[in-house]
Amino acid sequence: MVTAESGAARQPQPIPESHRDLFDKRAFAHIATLMPNGTPQVTPMWVMLQDGLVVVNSAKGRQKDRNMRGRRRVALSVQDPDNPYRYIGMRGIVVEITEEGADDVINQLSEKYTGNPVYQGRRPGEVRVTYKIRPDHIWTMG
Amino acid sequence: MVTAESGAARQPQPIPESHRDLFDKRAFAHIATLMPNGTPQVTPMWVMLQDGLVVVNSAKGRQKDRNMRGRRRVALSVQDPDNPYRYIGMRGIVVEITEEGADDVINQLSEKYTGNPVYQGRRPGEVRVTYKIRPDHIWTMG
Repeated sequence: MVTAESGAARQPQPIPESHRDLFDKRAFAHIATLMPNGTPQVTPMWVMLQDGLVVVNSAKGRQKDRNMRGRRRVALSVQDPDNPYRYIGMRGIVVEITEEGADDVINQLSEKYTGNPVYQGRRPGEVRVTYKIRPDHIWTMG
Repeated sequence: MVTAESGAARQPQPIPESHRDLFDKRAFAHIATLMPNGTPQVTPMWVMLQDGLVVVNSAKGRQKDRNMRGRRRVALSVQDPDNPYRYIGMRGIVVEITEEGADDVINQLSEKYTGNPVYQGRRPGEVRVTYKIRPDHIWTMG
């Protein structure tokens, strides 16, 4: 487990009640990270809330994994699948990166997004990793 | 009009035929830009293709406008509204920023996304701006 220096001291900005339901839907988060040269990268990912943090899961060695290990500042936006003019966006920091329990997390995400409680996309030898994002600046629309 | 130094010399990476249709749908692009301190920001935006470039439109002075003027490297991802496991992502550079024709562009985008050929979201005194993004690195899924 790696904990960001600035992680412990600060409280996350709370997810507004008005838009919490977006995290109950099968809405993807478009997660922006930074490449080694400082340019942005963005991909849709499964996402869930846990203790006020935004939780995502990837596999060790992927671009997303390398970016979040190397540069903790990220951003994300989630649109309501039922109304694209309703969304939540945030900037934040990856405060925890851990392999512990990461297989459980990807299974929970699989259940949320596909209904299958066992993740079907696993590749041979793949090591799952969980990233916890502390929202520091949140904006909403709709 | 501002033209990026590196813009003229290079050809855009072509949008793959397999995923061009995403730009015909009412799918939003989640556009990642860089804040002044180099951290990422991402929001959903209307988008269209023109001459191999990805065209978006915002208003002068907004965060997105300031970010793209100050830092030309951007990224975006577009999911198929009919199948979220089908998407296109790209990293690229803003090669042109112009107010010329920007009112026409926002009206075209309005027609594409809402069916109304006249953009209804205009605020008093708002100056529309068009940004043209040259795709330099494209990836697809599904």
